Amino acid sequence: MLPAVNLRPPFNITRTSHLVLNVADLAKSRDFYVNIVGLVVTEETADICYLRGLAEACHHSLVLVRSPNGGTCKRIGFRVFFEEDLDLAYEFFKKEDLPVEWVQVAHQGRTLHAEDPYGTKIELCAQMETRPRMYLEREKFKGAHAQRLDHYQIFSPNTYKSCEFYSRLGFRNSEYLEHGDKLLGAFMYRKGTCLDLAIVENDGPKLHHFAYTIPESHQIFTACDLAGIYGYAHEVERGPGRHGPGGMLFVYLRDPDGHRVELFNSHYQTIDIEIEPVRWDAASLSTNVRWGLPAPHRWYFEASGFEGGKLIDAQQKPNPETLEKYVQKLSANQ
Amino acid sequence: MLPAVNLRPPFNITRTSHLVLNVADLAKSRDFYVNIVGLVVTEETADICYLRGLAEACHHSLVLVRSPNGGTCKRIGFRVFFEEDLDLAYEFFKKEDLPVEWVQVAHQGRTLHAEDPYGTKIELCAQMETRPRMYLEREKFKGAHAQRLDHYQIFSPNTYKSCEFYSRLGFRNSEYLEHGDKLLGAFMYRKGTCLDLAIVENDGPKLHHFAYTIPESHQIFTACDLAGIYGYAHEVERGPGRHGPGGMLFVYLRDPDGHRVELFNSHYQTIDIEIEPVRWDAASLSTNVRWGLPAPHRWYFEASGFEGGKLIDAQQKPNPETLEKYVQKLSANQ
Amino acid sequence: MLPAVNLRPPFNITRTSHLVLNVADLAKSRDFYVNIVGLVVTEETADICYLRGLAEACHHSLVLVRSPNGGTCKRIGFRVFFEEDLDLAYEFFKKEDLPVEWVQVAHQGRTLHAEDPYGTKIELCAQMETRPRMYLEREKFKGAHAQRLDHYQIFSPNTYKSCEFYSRLGFRNSEYLEHGDKLLGAFMYRKGTCLDLAIVENDGPKLHHFAYTIPESHQIFTACDLAGIYGYAHEVERGPGRHGPGGMLFVYLRDPDGHRVELFNSHYQTIDIEIEPVRWDAASLSTNVRWGLPAPHRWYFEASGFEGGKLIDAQQKPNPETLEKYVQKLSANQ
Amino acid sequence: MLPAVNLRPPFNITRTSHLVLNVADLAKSRDFYVNIVGLVVTEETADICYLRGLAEACHHSLVLVRSPNGGTCKRIGFRVFFEEDLDLAYEFFKKEDLPVEWVQVAHQGRTLHAEDPYGTKIELCAQMETRPRMYLEREKFKGAHAQRLDHYQIFSPNTYKSCEFYSRLGFRNSEYLEHGDKLLGAFMYRKGTCLDLAIVENDGPKLHHFAYTIPESHQIFTACDLAGIYGYAHEVERGPGRHGPGGMLFVYLRDPDGHRVELFNSHYQTIDIEIEPVRWDAASLSTNVRWGLPAPHRWYFEASGFEGGKLIDAQQKPNPETLEKYVQKLSANQ
Repeated sequence: MLPAVNLRPPFNITRTSHLVLNVADLAKSRDFYVNIVGLVVTEETADICYLRGLAEACHHSLVLVRSPNGGTCKRIGFRVFFEEDLDLAYEFFKKEDLPVEWVQVAHQGRTLHAEDPYGTKIELCAQMETRPRMYLEREKFKGAHAQRLDHYQIFSPNTYKSCEFYSRLGFRNSEYLEHGDKLLGAFMYRKGTCLDLAIVENDGPKLHHFAYTIPESHQIFTACDLAGIYGYAHEVERGPGRHGPGGMLFVYLRDPDGHRVELFNSHYQTIDIEIEPVRWDAASLSTNVRWGLPAPHRWYFEASGFEGGKLIDAQQKPNPETLEKYVQKLSANQ
Repeated sequence: MLPAVNLRPPFNITRTSHLVLNVADLAKSRDFYVNIVGLVVTEETADICYLRGLAEACHHSLVLVRSPNGGTCKRIGFRVFFEEDLDLAYEFFKKEDLPVEWVQVAHQGRTLHAEDPYGTKIELCAQMETRPRMYLEREKFKGAHAQRLDHYQIFSPNTYKSCEFYSRLGFRNSEYLEHGDKLLGAFMYRKGTCLDLAIVENDGPKLHHFAYTIPESHQIFTACDLAGIYGYAHEVERGPGRHGPGGMLFVYLRDPDGHRVELFNSHYQTIDIEIEPVRWDAASLSTNVRWGLPAPHRWYFEASGFEGGKLIDAQQKPNPETLEKYVQKLSANQ
Repeated sequence: MLPAVNLRPPFNITRTSHLVLNVADLAKSRDFYVNIVGLVVTEETADICYLRGLAEACHHSLVLVRSPNGGTCKRIGFRVFFEEDLDLAYEFFKKEDLPVEWVQVAHQGRTLHAEDPYGTKIELCAQMETRPRMYLEREKFKGAHAQRLDHYQIFSPNTYKSCEFYSRLGFRNSEYLEHGDKLLGAFMYRKGTCLDLAIVENDGPKLHHFAYTIPESHQIFTACDLAGIYGYAHEVERGPGRHGPGGMLFVYLRDPDGHRVELFNSHYQTIDIEIEPVRWDAASLSTNVRWGLPAPHRWYFEASGFEGGKLIDAQQKPNPETLEKYVQKLSANQ
Repeated sequence: MLPAVNLRPPFNITRTSHLVLNVADLAKSRDFYVNIVGLVVTEETADICYLRGLAEACHHSLVLVRSPNGGTCKRIGFRVFFEEDLDLAYEFFKKEDLPVEWVQVAHQGRTLHAEDPYGTKIELCAQMETRPRMYLEREKFKGAHAQRLDHYQIFSPNTYKSCEFYSRLGFRNSEYLEHGDKLLGAFMYRKGTCLDLAIVENDGPKLHHFAYTIPESHQIFTACDLAGIYGYAHEVERGPGRHGPGGMLFVYLRDPDGHRVELFNSHYQTIDIEIEPVRWDAASLSTNVRWGLPAPHRWYFEASGFEGGKLIDAQQKPNPETLEKYVQKLSANQ
């Protein structure tokens, strides 16, 4: 059973918006996202690089910050619809006794920093500087032609409780993964497609991955080929494969600091409230459908911690069918 | 200058939902949409056929009705979010002195029939029966793999005034086409992509076309090939080509009754309110960008009337650069 | 009835190899072929530019020569298998009383210049310098990713007689186009796919087009998009469309001097001698199958003359169903 | 060092043509090749099923024979150019003291059965019944749209000696894999692309796999999706991935009897004799380039024996970097 959804949430989060990652080597990370993923640099200094997808009109969806804490995540950002939603959000977090504060962030309107009940670091704003979308400037396309940031997947020490919290903020599940009545994965959205925030259970909070859309399936191969060419062959961590939940083709890459980015090709439309979330019954977090090797152990257990955050042990450690276990069984049969 | 948008509209239309077309030969029309476009039949009787796209969970997005008025459109449908939005909509249309009435429609929840100020026949509901999405059942795919209904384009006798009306209902322009300060085309959305309703100026109201998404560009060729095979070679009316507004690849087909369906491959995401609509300055409604022959005369002037409706002369007749004019100029130069 | 084929020809032409074009502005033409078509520059001086496709191992398949005769073609080249085939070829042309001479050509082995009975200028060699194929160097791909030169189409004053000549050299028809018993188009090959040399009837000899393969259909759209971006929108002369003969998707572009290049996506395999050529019965040279607008007049009548060559009037002027005629009929019906 | 090639071989093998497989359940195997691979049934009885690819004009490229020896291969077939090449072949094998005999085979012209020095069972013919190519009949396409049989890979007890034998028959290496000066893999062709026969070292002779071309990369995903749907998820044995040698995208599937079929998307053109074979230096038979998991143990060691043939131990057993070994190392590091 999924938690109840508040269809009239206290403030209106509209979509996954942008995230801020700490990286050890700014140029190297920028090159990874430009040459392989296909993002565009909006602006760059010695310490910070702002990138966006080819179809994005806002100043940045990915912010890379040069930092001794490379490999950690500063914040995952969501957009709210109106400026006043920020005020309502401020009140909400205060009332919940959760950390929240007003901050100044370059290229953004008024911005809030807040934390969910397990300490996931969130950034909310209602406005950003805009730039022309690049989707028609074909001569400038590079890499896998990533179009726009789509969603995050986070580790939560308690998937159900996190899902409950975000359900109160109006996030709904498009699909979910249960083992019996234990909720293993909650695939939640605000924006009318399948996902803005996926929650899986593990020691957390951590950022498991963020995902950009690519226009066609052949660009999944392009991403792999370019990853290989630029020295990231072993960082093609999982896939190409086909998800069950959401139904999309995917590949997961690890960037120079180990941050994980997913490229995937499409999502269906959600929006309507009479449509029931799709339930997948599985003993494991695997989301392969019908074919493809299981994800390796590191895909299940490695993730980017939030800078300065505290880790909480998972209520239930995942015990997934990893590539390693699967292959061991294969070997035993030989 | 575009009309002001009401960002807190009187009721919440969420998306383009379904349309009802009169057709002379039900089996022939069904075969067109199944074999070429790739829709799935949800249910069918001797007089009515309900179809949906591969990624749609609702009972129907296209309803074909056997009728002596083949070639006319009964209704274009939109979804509202809550049941109570229907009540608010009823009040709104009453207050505006526009036709509105409660009706019973099979497979749908409470349903309203209404008309916009120029007589465009609209249907609103908040719920529909659901069916499993078919997007993973690859073995059943046919035609061009149409995923979901995306938008309508209508003829209005006055684009600006129609745009103003829909702006009051919360529709925003992603892009628009002006010749000087005359608004020629308004590309409006509710659902967070580029379009739910495009409005162009001509004798109306009429339905110019409805559009389904296809997943990848190669399916545009598949649609053309199958149209040719099934006897609709001359009904590949325009394209394949690339739009400027929206940036997508497209092809337009005419069905057995002359209804026009567009297949196109993708849209960017909108949602945020600080992003300005993109303005295209053009003397004509042509939306080709950079390459491709102009659309033929019939693409500009033929459209499906609304059954039982009255036509109003356009404030300003379009004078587009048609294929015919373009070719005449070519011939003159030979 | 097609002419008899000599399956044991006097010398062994193996494939379409390379062509040499005169261009007015070398940099402009090079940019066209690099940025839109996707060829790679092997070597370049102020006066000559050597290009090859991504999958080609030989030094050049397209040679651009700066010349006051921009828009003319110097030579179309074929490869022979052995060095001794060159000697046999020399003897053959001498015996036929056709122009033939030994020449020195940079980056090629021993080379012959010869002419067919109507004056088509041919170059034959058995060896060329080699370069690494680029097909795995994905990070260097540009344009439409053209893979390799595939075939030429020439104007002959007498298609049947030209077809007869090349049949004596071992060229076979994969498909052909007849109107009644008048041969309009001969689609001939040596290399085991559909084409090395297509011959159509018109004042000639002229080079109608040369064709490069592209790997996937989406690159046809990429070529169009880039043509538009780089100022060649009106030079997307015909297509995208689907051929009947050969069955491939195509687009024809005109380069800065008006030379015509076709990009197409695939060919079937031929080779076996028991397979009968496919006959298409048509009143016109149109090769569209089932959908797509007819080619414009200029596609049928414009072509690159051979530098220094003489034109011979066609036995029978083509009277094709052009775009112009087709549209005129459409207009008449409005 | 590769063996010397006879460029004027004693008889003219032109291409990989067809193979004959024993299968336990004819209907099940046919459905596999029709629904997943996309072959077309030319003709079928209770005991034998003839299939061909969409672009093939000959009666069959794959023959399935109902047999208690399901999982074995009867023959791999090659075409020769002229009828007289069969007579020359007969003489050759006789002179070599290799098994050879004239046989009657339905739907084929005069046919020879022969064996190479290690007992690989070969069938040669110069003619076959023809059927219309299906490449334009889009409405009949199924599965992954396989176009044509391309090549075989066999196990030989001695790769070098087998390569030497086929080199005498005019087969040339496009690429090859060596570990130091030990030849591990010979990628040989006759038909002007990269491959007709790949030879790798293992206990043999066995048929490791046969390969069909698919037109575009997205069909690799279609094959995987359909394999999953029809119950062959675990038979997606290797890939999707990118080969180094040849550079193509691939996936390997195992059919109901364990026969292995590869689907891949393209090859470059070879033909010219001055181009040197590409050498890959590797300790293993792996042909992944730059990204992708190693092939599993069974991919390296399982293959279809030739019915009634004797196995010879490999001169040097392969010691490949399998998936199992790779994952064990990963596990050791956790």
